[in-house]
Formats: sequence, C-alpha cells, structure tokens
Amino acid sequence: MKETDISRTILEEYNRRLLEHLENDVVIVGAGPAGLAAAYYLSKSGIKTTVIEKKLSIGGGIWGGAAGYNVVTFEDKDILDEIGVTTKKEGDLYTADAIEFATALGYKAKKAGAEIFNLIEAEDIVLKEETVKGVVVNSASVRMLGLHVDPFCICSRCVIDATGHPAELVGMLKARKPELFPKELQEYFMNVETSEAGVVEKTGEVYPGLYVAGMSVCDVYNLPRMGPIFGGMLKSGKKVAELIKNKLKI
Amino acid sequence: MKETDISRTILEEYNRRLLEHLENDVVIVGAGPAGLAAAYYLSKSGIKTTVIEKKLSIGGGIWGGAAGYNVVTFEDKDILDEIGVTTKKEGDLYTADAIEFATALGYKAKKAGAEIFNLIEAEDIVLKEETVKGVVVNSASVRMLGLHVDPFCICSRCVIDATGHPAELVGMLKARKPELFPKELQEYFMNVETSEAGVVEKTGEVYPGLYVAGMSVCDVYNLPRMGPIFGGMLKSGKKVAELIKNKLKI
Amino acid sequence: MKETDISRTILEEYNRRLLEHLENDVVIVGAGPAGLAAAYYLSKSGIKTTVIEKKLSIGGGIWGGAAGYNVVTFEDKDILDEIGVTTKKEGDLYTADAIEFATALGYKAKKAGAEIFNLIEAEDIVLKEETVKGVVVNSASVRMLGLHVDPFCICSRCVIDATGHPAELVGMLKARKPELFPKELQEYFMNVETSEAGVVEKTGEVYPGLYVAGMSVCDVYNLPRMGPIFGGMLKSGKKVAELIKNKLKI
Amino acid sequence: MKETDISRTILEEYNRRLLEHLENDVVIVGAGPAGLAAAYYLSKSGIKTTVIEKKLSIGGGIWGGAAGYNVVTFEDKDILDEIGVTTKKEGDLYTADAIEFATALGYKAKKAGAEIFNLIEAEDIVLKEETVKGVVVNSASVRMLGLHVDPFCICSRCVIDATGHPAELVGMLKARKPELFPKELQEYFMNVETSEAGVVEKTGEVYPGLYVAGMSVCDVYNLPRMGPIFGGMLKSGKKVAELIKNKLKI
Amino acid sequence: MKETDISRTILEEYNRRLLEHLENDVVIVGAGPAGLAAAYYLSKSGIKTTVIEKKLSIGGGIWGGAAGYNVVTFEDKDILDEIGVTTKKEGDLYTADAIEFATALGYKAKKAGAEIFNLIEAEDIVLKEETVKGVVVNSASVRMLGLHVDPFCICSRCVIDATGHPAELVGMLKARKPELFPKELQEYFMNVETSEAGVVEKTGEVYPGLYVAGMSVCDVYNLPRMGPIFGGMLKSGKKVAELIKNKLKI
Amino acid sequence: MKETDISRTILEEYNRRLLEHLENDVVIVGAGPAGLAAAYYLSKSGIKTTVIEKKLSIGGGIWGGAAGYNVVTFEDKDILDEIGVTTKKEGDLYTADAIEFATALGYKAKKAGAEIFNLIEAEDIVLKEETVKGVVVNSASVRMLGLHVDPFCICSRCVIDATGHPAELVGMLKARKPELFPKELQEYFMNVETSEAGVVEKTGEVYPGLYVAGMSVCDVYNLPRMGPIFGGMLKSGKKVAELIKNKLKI
Amino acid sequence: MKETDISRTILEEYNRRLLEHLENDVVIVGAGPAGLAAAYYLSKSGIKTTVIEKKLSIGGGIWGGAAGYNVVTFEDKDILDEIGVTTKKEGDLYTADAIEFATALGYKAKKAGAEIFNLIEAEDIVLKEETVKGVVVNSASVRMLGLHVDPFCICSRCVIDATGHPAELVGMLKARKPELFPKELQEYFMNVETSEAGVVEKTGEVYPGLYVAGMSVCDVYNLPRMGPIFGGMLKSGKKVAELIKNKLKI
Amino acid sequence: MKETDISRTILEEYNRRLLEHLENDVVIVGAGPAGLAAAYYLSKSGIKTTVIEKKLSIGGGIWGGAAGYNVVTFEDKDILDEIGVTTKKEGDLYTADAIEFATALGYKAKKAGAEIFNLIEAEDIVLKEETVKGVVVNSASVRMLGLHVDPFCICSRCVIDATGHPAELVGMLKARKPELFPKELQEYFMNVETSEAGVVEKTGEVYPGLYVAGMSVCDVYNLPRMGPIFGGMLKSGKKVAELIKNKLKI
Repeated sequence: MKETDISRTILEEYNRRLLEHLENDVVIVGAGPAGLAAAYYLSKSGIKTTVIEKKLSIGGGIWGGAAGYNVVTFEDKDILDEIGVTTKKEGDLYTADAIEFATALGYKAKKAGAEIFNLIEAEDIVLKEETVKGVVVNSASVRMLGLHVDPFCICSRCVIDATGHPAELVGMLKARKPELFPKELQEYFMNVETSEAGVVEKTGEVYPGLYVAGMSVCDVYNLPRMGPIFGGMLKSGKKVAELIKNKLKI
Repeated sequence: MKETDISRTILEEYNRRLLEHLENDVVIVGAGPAGLAAAYYLSKSGIKTTVIEKKLSIGGGIWGGAAGYNVVTFEDKDILDEIGVTTKKEGDLYTADAIEFATALGYKAKKAGAEIFNLIEAEDIVLKEETVKGVVVNSASVRMLGLHVDPFCICSRCVIDATGHPAELVGMLKARKPELFPKELQEYFMNVETSEAGVVEKTGEVYPGLYVAGMSVCDVYNLPRMGPIFGGMLKSGKKVAELIKNKLKI
Repeated sequence: MKETDISRTILEEYNRRLLEHLENDVVIVGAGPAGLAAAYYLSKSGIKTTVIEKKLSIGGGIWGGAAGYNVVTFEDKDILDEIGVTTKKEGDLYTADAIEFATALGYKAKKAGAEIFNLIEAEDIVLKEETVKGVVVNSASVRMLGLHVDPFCICSRCVIDATGHPAELVGMLKARKPELFPKELQEYFMNVETSEAGVVEKTGEVYPGLYVAGMSVCDVYNLPRMGPIFGGMLKSGKKVAELIKNKLKI
Repeated sequence: MKETDISRTILEEYNRRLLEHLENDVVIVGAGPAGLAAAYYLSKSGIKTTVIEKKLSIGGGIWGGAAGYNVVTFEDKDILDEIGVTTKKEGDLYTADAIEFATALGYKAKKAGAEIFNLIEAEDIVLKEETVKGVVVNSASVRMLGLHVDPFCICSRCVIDATGHPAELVGMLKARKPELFPKELQEYFMNVETSEAGVVEKTGEVYPGLYVAGMSVCDVYNLPRMGPIFGGMLKSGKKVAELIKNKLKI
Repeated sequence: MKETDISRTILEEYNRRLLEHLENDVVIVGAGPAGLAAAYYLSKSGIKTTVIEKKLSIGGGIWGGAAGYNVVTFEDKDILDEIGVTTKKEGDLYTADAIEFATALGYKAKKAGAEIFNLIEAEDIVLKEETVKGVVVNSASVRMLGLHVDPFCICSRCVIDATGHPAELVGMLKARKPELFPKELQEYFMNVETSEAGVVEKTGEVYPGLYVAGMSVCDVYNLPRMGPIFGGMLKSGKKVAELIKNKLKI
Repeated sequence: MKETDISRTILEEYNRRLLEHLENDVVIVGAGPAGLAAAYYLSKSGIKTTVIEKKLSIGGGIWGGAAGYNVVTFEDKDILDEIGVTTKKEGDLYTADAIEFATALGYKAKKAGAEIFNLIEAEDIVLKEETVKGVVVNSASVRMLGLHVDPFCICSRCVIDATGHPAELVGMLKARKPELFPKELQEYFMNVETSEAGVVEKTGEVYPGLYVAGMSVCDVYNLPRMGPIFGGMLKSGKKVAELIKNKLKI
Repeated sequence: MKETDISRTILEEYNRRLLEHLENDVVIVGAGPAGLAAAYYLSKSGIKTTVIEKKLSIGGGIWGGAAGYNVVTFEDKDILDEIGVTTKKEGDLYTADAIEFATALGYKAKKAGAEIFNLIEAEDIVLKEETVKGVVVNSASVRMLGLHVDPFCICSRCVIDATGHPAELVGMLKARKPELFPKELQEYFMNVETSEAGVVEKTGEVYPGLYVAGMSVCDVYNLPRMGPIFGGMLKSGKKVAELIKNKLKI
Repeated sequence: MKETDISRTILEEYNRRLLEHLENDVVIVGAGPAGLAAAYYLSKSGIKTTVIEKKLSIGGGIWGGAAGYNVVTFEDKDILDEIGVTTKKEGDLYTADAIEFATALGYKAKKAGAEIFNLIEAEDIVLKEETVKGVVVNSASVRMLGLHVDPFCICSRCVIDATGHPAELVGMLKARKPELFPKELQEYFMNVETSEAGVVEKTGEVYPGLYVAGMSVCDVYNLPRMGPIFGGMLKSGKKVAELIKNKLKI
C-alpha cells in the first residue's frame, strides 16, 4: 500500500535522525546567519552539531535584506566565496542577493553535515553542576498555540545562543543566575560600538558551556538595532566555531 | 558617512534589479517546489525569468516535510542529483532532508540566473487581447495589513501560476472568464488520480499566456490534498519549462 | 545522562506506536462519546483500531454536560454499567457526572486495546477504487497556525466519521462526490426526529468504507442541535462496532 | 414534556452538588496530575474534597506527554499500579500512554469520591484571621471573555494550590503578603534541583491553610521548566494528602 | 460562615427561578425594545413569561440612541407615559433620554412579573408536531468562546423572536423549513415601507408557535436598516402581546 | 422631509444636554452601583451632577450577579426600598433580581435629575492649583479602536472616581503625584477588611476635589476582589453624596 | 474657565455644521480622489455638497502611490495645474508626489466650500419613491467595534457613490433591487477595458438619484484591479459634477 | 508596453527621491502638527528637510479634532493665516476645520520643499561621538507584521522628535543613556503647566543633535494628556525651526 509506505519512510527517517541527535557535541539555537555559519564551520571539522530553529524556514533576518529590499552588503567576501555566494563590488562594499545568501548558507551547512530541526523551540537550558549541558525543547507550534504540553531535552557538550535580538538562552540563564549580569558589566558593554567589530569581539563563552554568537551588545541588553551587519554575523559564527573546536579538542 | 553608504548601495542595487525585471520572458508566481524548478530550468536555458513570492522566505511547503517531520521522499532522484541534494535509498523510495532540498533548489535557481523577489504579491493578471501578459503586484506586507494602496505591474511573454493549493492566478482568470471553467471540464479533471503522474499530466497552458505547474487537480477545484508529492512538483516545473522554451523559440 | 534517556524512551515508544498503527482495521476520527464507544467495542473484539483526535484532550462534548452544568443524563444505563460509571435514578432518567463519564469511557477504550493519537487532524480521506481506505492526517497544531505543511496517511479497511456536528469526513466525501448528496436524500433525513432513536437509526455505512456514528441528521446537514443525547451516542458507537465486526469477518 | 425533564434533572443535580460543596474539608485548585492525585488520596480517606478546574477538561499537562508525543515516563510504578495504568519497562524507566494515565487518574479520583467542577476559576483566596479559608471563584468562561461579573466563594479547612506553573494561589497570597516572599527564601529555593525529589520535598504548607503540591521551585518563581516529571507530581499529591490528613485529624 | 451563606443564597435563588421557568406560557428571545415591551404587556396580564438575552445587559439597541447620541424620538407617547419615561415635545416629535428609556422599560417589565435571564443564548428552536414549543439554550459565554458544550431546553406554549436585525429564530426555522420562505413572499415584503407602520404591520405569528416582534422587513431578509424606529418596536411588542393573549385564552 | 427631522431633533437635543453639562457641580466617572447611587442622592438634593460611562450600557458589575447567576444579596434593604427594588428575605440576607436592581438604580438616578453620558471615557483629570477640577474625556469607541484623536474637557467643582476595580482616576492622580501614595498608606489600608464596612469607611476625599466611592481597598492597590458587596457600594454612594453636599454648601 | 470654553466652542461649531448639512444638494460617500474631485467641482459651482468618509483621514488610496512608493503618475495635467499640484514630465507621463496630491485635493475641495465629515459611515441608502434621496449614516468607530447602535439620516437631491473598490452604495441598491443588475449588463461591462477611459465612460447615474464616480468596472463586479489610474478618478469626479450640475439646474 | 512604463516611472522617481534624501540637514520623525510646521519653516529657509511618518496618511492627531468632532481651536491665527487656513472668531478663540487644517499644513510643507516619506518607521537613532546623527528606519508595514527584517539608515545634521505622545526618539535615547533622565529633571518638568506655553517653552535640543517639538511634558514622562493644543504645536514647530536655523548657520 503506497500511501503508508511513504508515511512509514518519513516517520522512520525523522525519528532515526532525532534520536541520533539527542546527544551532540554542540547544539546551536537559532538558524540565522551566525548560527548557520557556526554550524557550517563546526560540521566541516567533524564536530557533531545540531541546530534547532523555531520557525518553519531557516535564514532568520537574511531574507528581507534591509527593510524588505532583499540585497545584503559586506565589507569583505572571503566567507561568501567559500560558501559560493556571487558578489558584486560597489565602492568599498560587496553586494549579494539576500535569497542566494540565505539558501547558500543553509545548503552548505547541511552539506557539511550539520543536522537542522525546524519547528523546534528551546524552552530552557539544561543547567547541571554549574554548566550548561543542553537545551529543553518543545514543539514550536504547540507553544505558539499556548497549549499546556511538557518539553523534552537535547543535550550537548556546549550550547550556542544564536537567537540574535531576543538572546533567548542568555535570558534563561539570567533568570536563574541574575548575579551574572551586574550593572558594571552592562556599562562595560555600553561603551562598545554596535558594529561588525563589536559583534565579533563579544562572541564567546559567557558561562561554562554557553556561547553567544552573532549577538550585538544591543541584543544582550534588549536595545534597538542600528542596521544590518551580516558580515559580522558570519565572522562571529566562524569565531565561535574556532573557540569550541579548541575547547573540545582538549 | 558609512551608514548611508550601505543604505545607498542596497537601495540602488534593489532598484536596478527591479527595474531590469519589469519586463521578462517569464514571470512565475510562487517560489515553492514547482515554481523554483521551473525557474531553474528556464534560467539555465537563458530565458529571462522572474519569480515573485509573497512570503519572506521561499520554498513553500517543502520546509515542513510531512506534518512537520522534515523529511521528503521521492520515487526517482534524477533532478535531485542535478541540483545536488543528497538522497538515501529506503525500499522503493529515496529520502532527503527537507531543509537541504529547499535551500538547494532555491540556491540552484538563483545560480542559474533567476531573479526572485520576496514580499511581493500578485493581485491580478494583466489580460490584454485575450492573452495573459503579466501580473499586477503589490507589497505583500501592505496587503496583509489591509492598507488601501494601489498596485503596479510586472509584464512578461508568459506567466506561470505556481501558487499551488490556492491556484491564485487561475482564480483571477476564472473571476474574469467564468465560461472557461465549465462543469464538464471539472468532471473530466475529477477522474484523474491525485498523484505524481496527475500533477505532471495536468501541467500546461490553460489560457493564452497562462501556464500552471505543480498544481494537482484538487488545487484547481479547491479540494483537500492527499499527501506530499514533491517529485511530481519538480517534474511539473521541468515540464512547464520545456513547454515555454518551445513556445518562446517560435 | 538522564535527561536524554527520558527523551529517547518517549520518542522511541511514540514512534513505535505510530508506525504500528499506520495500517489498521479501523480508523475512527473524533474521540467524542460515539468515537470512544466504537473504539471500546471494536478493540474488545480484537479489531485493530486507531482513534485520531485533533484536540489535546479526548471526550469531545461530554465534559461540559449541558451549558456547563457538568451532569449527563441517560434513558438506560447498560453501557454505563459496562464501562463502570456510577449512575443515580431521577424519575425516568439516570444521571452521571460528566467528568466521570468522559474519563471512564476513554480509560475503558484504552484498556480494551484501542490506540488514540491526540493533536492529529484529518485533512482528507484516502479514496481509492471508489472506496474509503484511510485518512490523510496532519499535525493539528501546525494546521491551527495556518502553516504550509503537507500531510501524511493512516490507512485502514474502514473509517468511522465520529466528528459529530462538523461531520468532517462526510464533508470531504461530499466535496469530491457531490452527486452522493441529492436533495431527495436530504428531505428523507429531514423527516427523522433528532433524538436518541434517530442518531442510532442513521448510524451506518454511507459510502463503501466510510461509516458515520453519533451523528444526528442535523449534523449531516449542518443544522443547529436540539440537546444532549449522550445515550444515543453510546448506542451509535456500539452499533457501528457491530456493523464493522460483521463486515470485517466476511 | 421530555425536553424540560432532562433540563430539570441536570440543573437540580448540578445545583445539589455545588451547594453540597460550598463547604469542604479541602479545596484543590487545578485538576492536573498533582491535584488529581491529592484528590484521590484525600477522598479515599474520607476527607470531603472539591477540585476546581478552569478548563473544560481535566488532566492538565498530562495529555501532550512530551512535545505532543503522548507517552509518559516514570521512575517507579507503585501509584500507577494502584490507579490501574498499564506500564511497560524500558531500561530504568516505565512508560505509559498519556491518555490512559490522564483518564485513569481522573476516573479514580472521581470513584474515590472527589467532587470536580470544571469551567470554574479561582479569582482570589479567602484570607481570614491570617489563615486561608477558601477560594473566591467565578465562571471561567465569563472571565475569559473579560466580562465585568463578580465572583462567589467556596470555603474549606485548607486549600491546595495545584495550579502548577502559574502558581496562581501563591501569587494571590504574595500580592497581599509580599513580606512572605523575601529574597533569602528565593535564594534558598534556587539551590534545590528541579527534579522529582525537589518537587516532592517542596510539597507542604506555605502559609496557614495554604498547601502547594506538584509545584517545582521554578513554578514558585516563574522560571522555565526543565522537563516532564509526572512521577514527582503523583508523589507530591500523595504527600500533601498525608500532611492534610494528619493536620485535620488533630 | 458568612462567605458561603451569600454564595448559597444566590445559587439557591437563581436555581429556583431557572427551574420555575423551564416551562412557560411564552419565551421571548431578545431583551431589546420590542422584547421588553412584549414581556411587560404579557406579564401584566398574568401570562407566565421568560425573556432570554445573550448579552450581560438588556436594552438592545436603545442605549446608543442614534450613532451614539443617546437621545430617542417618538411620534406619540402613550406607552412612554405608561412606563414612566419623561418626554419633551420638539415639533412633531417627542424626545426622551435613551438611558432612561432603557432602564424604565426593563424595570417595568420586571415589576410586571417577567423573568429575564441574561448570558443565555438560543441555539435552536424546539420544533415538535409542526409547532414551535420552546428554545434550545446554552451559556452565551461558553458559546462566545467556541467551547464544545451541549445545550438544554426551555419550553413554552409559544415563542417570540425579538432578536431584531439577526432574526435568529426565523433563521433557525428557515434552515429547517426552507420551503416556508419562497421568493414571492420575499417580493411581497419588499414592497412594504421600512417604517413604524411596517414594523407593526408585520408583527405576528409566522409559523405555528413562533411570533416575530419588532422586526422590520429588512431584518427578515438581512437588508440594511434605515434608521431608529423605537416607537414601532414598542407598538410591535404591545401588538404581539395582544395576539398571544387572545390565542392563549382560547 | 421626515428622516432629517428625526436626525435634527436627536442631534440638537444631545448637543443641548452636553453643552449644558460641560460645567457641573459634580462629575461622576463610572455608572456602576456606587456611581449611580451617588448620582441619585446628589441629584435628589438639587446638585448638578453628570455621570460619564465608557460602556454602552450602565450598571457596571450588577448585571451578572455572582458568576453570572443574576441574583444579588444585601444585609439590609433601606436603600433598595427607597429605589423600589423588590427584595425577599432568606435567612439573614435579602435577595433581589440583578436586572431589576440595575434598571431601578439607573432609572431612579435619571428621574432624580442626573445626566448620564455613555460611550464617553475619562482620559485624564483636570488638575489646577493642586485641585481636581474636572475630567478630560474622549469618545470611548474612538479610544477602543486606538485612533489618534485628542480629547475635550468636562469640568466640575468636584469629581467622584466610581470606576471600581481599575480605580482609573486615582491611577491618573498617582501618575502625576506619586508622593501621595506612600508605602505606609498602603500598609494602613492593608489591615482593613475587604467588606461592606471597609468600602464605606474608605469612601471620601483622597485629594482636593477628588472623591472615591464604591472602591474597596483592594481596588486602590489593584488586588483581587473577595466577592460581591453591592450593599457597601450603595452605602458608599450615599455617603459620598452626603460628604459632597456638606462641602458644596459651605 | 478656559478648558470648557474650548470644549464648548468645538461642540457648538461641529453641531452647527452637521445640522446645516443634514439636507444637501449632493452627498458624496467616500473622500478618495474621485469623491474629492467631484466635491471640488460641485462646490466651486455653488452646489451645497457634503462628503462623508469612514476613515479618520481623507485621500483614500492616494497616499500609498503604487505599492507604497508614494509617487503618482498622470497622462495629462490640466486638473493638477488647477488644484496646484507640482508635476514633472517623465517621457509621456507626468509624476507628482502622492502626499502633495492628496493634501492639495482635500485642501482645494474644502476651500471651494465642500463640507467633509470623517469617521462617519454610510449604512444604507434612503430610497423613497424609486429614487435615492440620501444616506443612512452612523459613527464609523461604533460600527467598527460591532456595537449595537442605530443610525441617523443625511439627505440630498442626489448621492454619489465614490467608495471605489467596495462600491458600497451600489451594493446596497443591489441588495434591494437585484433585478437592476442583470447578467447581460455584467457581460456588457466586461468588454470594456479597465483604463482611464473606461472609468470616465462609466461615470454617471445608475439609478434615479444615485451616481457613481471613480469606479472602474472591476469595482462594480468586485473583480481585482489592474493598477493606479488616478487621472481617470479626477476626470470621473469632474464629469459627475458636470452631470449633476446640469440635472440640478433643471 | 504602457503598464510597465507607469511602473518604471514610479519606481525610478521614488528611488531618486529616497537616495537624494539619505543625507539631510534635518530629519523630522512624525508628520503631525509640530513636525509639519517645523518642516514648513525649515524648508522655506532652504534647509534640506525630510519627514518620516509611519502611518499611510500624514496629519497625526489633527483629523479627529476633539473626540472626533473635527473642529480645531486656536488662541491666535498668525500661522494659520500664513498657511492659508480659514478661521472664524468665536469669543476669545478662532475655530477652523480640522480637515482643512491638516491638508493645508501638509500641502504647504510640501510646497515649501520638504520631502515626506510615509510608511517608514524609525527603529533607532544613529548615535555617534555622543551626537545624534540620523535615524535607523524600516518599512512600517513590515514592522507592524512582526516580520524579522533589518533596517537601513537616514542621516542628518540634526533630528527632531515630533512623535508627540509616544516620544519615540527620546525613549530610544533614554534606553541608551538612562543617566540623562534623572529624577530631578522629571520633578522640574512636573511643575510646568501642560499648556500652549508649556509646549513651546520645552521645545529645544535635549541632547546634541536631538530636538523635541510639539511635545508637552506629559509626553516626555508618558502621562495622560489634558486636551488639544494645536496652537502650541504650530508654535513649537516654528520655534524648533528657528533654533535649528541658527545652529546650522554657524
């Protein structure tokens, strides 16, 4: 009976993948530019990496370019060349098509071996022995409907918060460990420019097991954004991949 | 001043592209599997092709696989091989990852030279001298908000309705030419199986200048769907590209 | 690692059950009083039965009794005795607690061996060779959100529409086979009283492979309802179980 | 006249029950796993117990299992055996069907003699002489619609807050007695693991007359949850029943 | 214990009233001007009358006067004098305060002995032996929330549809007896002016047991309205009361 | 031309009333039980009084009785006798019909000479020379729609906040004069019981020109309510009328 | 007292204007380009003209230009010169700023003497002796909220439906006089191009007393639109003004 | 092909304007009375000025007059005479038509040379070297839909926050520089009357590069408003234009 053959094949394959990725080297929350870049570089190095994304599609804020004009700009093009995005020189900048950039990045992350689950949302962090050891996840559609349904867990040796503006995992950590977010830290961040350089500089481990990537300082403190800095996102994703590779090799 | 340099570059590039594609060989409405496949094959043959998509992201129904299990199945894998999607043999079927399939298809269509505008919605068809000669479009976000704003036009030698289930352009034609949709036609369609074969068979020109692709008969008459047939969508996209290439070469 | 052990156990067990029930003797759509009663009697006879319910909880209209007064009344109590519901005689009627009735019925159907999947919604019927051979299903939460995601199939030798007032499967059949719902049939139904007797009398096979249970005539034609007739629902569920047992034994 | 006989019987029976339960030994707010377990054990001991639940159905978060996979897991199965739930051994865990678990628990609580009113919502606590002596309740549907309608009271010797995550009654007490929730108390709670053991340990009387059950520490302080711990909920319900039985026997 | 004394007294009194009015001489659906006037005149004559109103407050369209200017106008003032509303002569018209008119009419209907239940909605008519014998009712708040809850019945020797514009009961009858609403009847109504005279003239029994009052012809056929005619509503209420008094005295 | 005669009469009469009441002795915000009782007693004494109410109907929380059971209870019946409400003795309490109570109170306030404007909402207080001298009002429907439209003013020698639970005018004063609401004051209020006596005791002038009536202490501090105390509302309305009469006579 | 002086002045002035315009030579429904142009030309000729507009601002679809690009184009510029709009020649077209066009047109209509009431909505036509003699109007905000409030009337010697796409008044006429809209008429219209010429050609009296202006044939039959034709709107407004001037001079 | 000629002309003209105004002398956020007055006076002096407005129409709170009575009042009429608004003397006040005032002000600002972009929303300020140097903007419709799309920048030598009540830019500055809004400043503002004089007095530069206009003190601290003071708005717009002219001439 053909109909159930297709159903069976899909269910078995999905389940096999999900079970295989309940335990990972790295879990990345958020399939935007930084999260996908991190996934690409980590997977290319043979690190077992799973990305969870609450929306149906991946790419985050890439698709709309700026204000819906679906063009993206970059200061340099090394990573774009690496992932196969056509660029065009305009003055000091390189332009690319937002849709080509989004699909290329997702495609290359997948080809490098990353596992990506969409419609899955992180509800909480797994926090054990003062270390982040995974994420508590749920069906994103069940949560959007406000249904009362409990979550399950996906674990890993470290977790990357690549949720961008909402800084969701950092927020969960802050709810549990408010003393980690003192006023002085906030003031220190405040003096950093919101720029590509700032995004890359602030990439790193903010708590044992929890890394942030592609998150400008305004994201950490819920400030408004100053403009699209997709180049910084890519570099941040690459940097966090380097940091984790070094850490996990020890 | 750096901020406005970026703004200027994005606005100029977007505007250049949009103006360049006000007139086309083919306009495809809907960036789902059939629309993207058609865009890929048409562009590869040097046909000037523009896809408009009302959502922010492309890929249509691909991302969710079946019921959110993001795995897709196929009966054969020729087109998948061509666009670079990894497949796995399971019994008589091939499985692939839905996210890899969506990004590969969009990426390859772009690389082949197709232009894709997202957040743009077709409001009407341009119908002149009993021929469809383009689409009347508007900002999709303006329309979603119900704002009272007029549209503009994108023209072409022929138009493909690849909107899938809603069959939006066919509906617009039907509103203007109800006599084209007689009861007998409906009954004739009813006897065709809703399957890959049916989708491909029904692909074609339904009115001078208007083609349908990736649209099962249930879509044409607003019936419920029987299951995912992404293979049929790809073949339908390929077939409509062949038909148009032959037509435009005359 | 304990967290993923729990996750793994849940995912594996759910998947095992779902795969085991892709093919069934009977699929029942709707876990209200008639659907659960049918599931109870079919399962008790060893018929492989799966119930799908789009809500999170089962029980349908039982919980609210009448207008939220959570008391239910019955003309006789044989089935209630069988499923272990405490009744009280008041004049010619028996009363029971709505919550006890809902939980007892669900509990006994489960104990008899029925499989019940909640948050699963029927999108279409599987119609092959002029026979209903299963249902096309999707995640109910994905559908409630209006996400564009394709369905999968659950098949069976016959299907019971126990969706009550909306008569969902009958509606899907009607969309495909409008000629099955002639005006005379409608008038014939109109002369039947909306009562326990009417509900039971109209229980049966309405098309090869498609049975209706617990559906008053007003449900079939989308008329308003005249009051709670839970007794009729139970008897209708029992009757459809008998009819199917006879059919499948051939 | 048959129609009004049914109406009269339902209204009289409901009213009789409601009046009979305006005064109780125990009122439990929330018919989730902990509330129903407490209701089962209290009623079995002959304690006059009323559960109020704002939803139409009972069972709380049980129905969806984890992320909608309707399977539940337990570390031991004593209580499940007692309430008649079929379990299956998988490694160190026992699995059960979520729907069977929800209906069995509700059914057994009813059979043990608990009264359950659904569609009734607690608006406030009755606080007299520094003791919680009941709950101020209203029609849940009237409140969901935001209608301006006053409440009424249901009293008892003690009240159990089994509302789970929202910790509704504790919140009402906190609004009136903020000094009961000092920062040190919060820090103390923070050092307890969110686990079965933690849930059971924190079960108890938090203010004269007000008990909490099935509430992890994250619930008390509105933190995110770490996963489904239905076993802890059952044990917490059993423990609070023991505590109250001892108290009321004095 | 004082709190439950108040609760008990309210619940017992409400229940006594509701049970006492499950069977009536007349049930009026809609507590707007025509419904309340009919209730006043029927009750004054000793006819047992119950009004059901789905909103929380009574008065229907009176409160807003015209476009929110809360003044009402009348051609004559006999009924207003009778119910104690202060009027003022302005040219050929009498003006009154809309709020005084609404409260006076409700107050006098109550004082005359009518029973009024608010937050109760008619879902259907009780139709037996080709006669309307009551209404099927439900909690209006439960229905507004779309909860799946069954109704109960309130019976009577005759029923008045005083729902005004929506003509709810006539619509329910039409759904069951479409042949009662032929095209010729519609055309006949069309030639009547929408005026006070028209409203009064069309007042009467439209089917055995079902009367309409305060319903202009545009209401019957769902046309837009031409302006406030509260005088016609009062006279229509008085007329239907006379008709029913004559009928019931036989 | 008859249609515009009616329109003209309504518009002129409404405008005459509104202009006449731009300046008043007393403005009462909120047409619930306390506001209407105050309006009745003030108007009866010849004080020029205007009530503004943002809803379409008046009566506030009276209509729903308790949880929609439309019965109201009182400890004594002097005011009810005075306004002509039928009461019934039940134990230590008097019951009345909620609809009769709401309409009688509104009707008697109007008859005593109070002006009532519905669909008018207070946006702010007029605060001059450290005294409340009126209210800034707007169309309630315009505000509910979130339209950007400026308000106008209605002035008076004093203002009564009878908005009940939201305590709207007190909130506006608090926003401007936070120092008037010290922590000690809050604690002082906290020790008063939420009862009829408490409501009456707290009635009075809270700031030069601003009186509160019918507001329990929980209303002032946004706490949940403990139950319906309509008797206290009436007495509070009567008391505030006395206080203002004394003040204005000086 | 200054605050009420301002309130009094505003209320008196508004009321004076509204009463003055209860009877008019012409009422125009809809303050978009055609309605405002008609108002301008009619008022300039001394015809007493009132425009009603349901939105807060006037200008209709002008503000957004095409898809939010706020530029408008015209084939000739005579009317634009007359109303003082700056134009720029681009090929065969003239461009203007959409905001300048909207404000100039409204400003010149006002200066010519037209009265415009915003937030007022037409609910119905006044139809007497087979002639349209005015409109039944209501507060647009009250209607948007779905409040049950009756309308009032504004009369005139003739009425212009300038509601554009919804063709609201034509729809009201059609509901009352369906025989005026035969199939042949529809087919006749269908053969006219949707262009400036078509819009102007179809301008005229469609029923005694009811004129249409600025309405393309697609508006009359609810078809989708083909693009912005503001030039045709202006000419249609000018033409309908000419037609009415000739009619009223007789 | 005529359709695309129109499209091309509109797109090119809009793009030309937008690119030309990426860098300005002054950017004004908010096209209400103060913003438009400032734009008028600045442009008249040859200052390159761009106004951005998130709504489709301009005019802000002018259109509704007071509570929808579309009449506006002024203490003096110099600016009104200058922009060509007809006024009428009523006692000490001048009245004008709100629609004439809104259109005249917008029209004159445009004629003076101001550029106005509607449907554009400020998301953030450009803050460099402790100076406000522009605004970060986005498509207002994209933002209203909650789509995840990045912004672009419009720069200027100074920025005017003319957003009125929400004080949006001041809020953005406050989020980044909370130390600029000390309690003493708040208290100082509190002692200023909310009047025309107050509005004008508080007009000025609040931070290097950021000016406020038309903002009463209640706007700065989010207090409710006391009434329409359009005269103050105009004068504030004129004053801020003078201040900026002096500053930029240095």
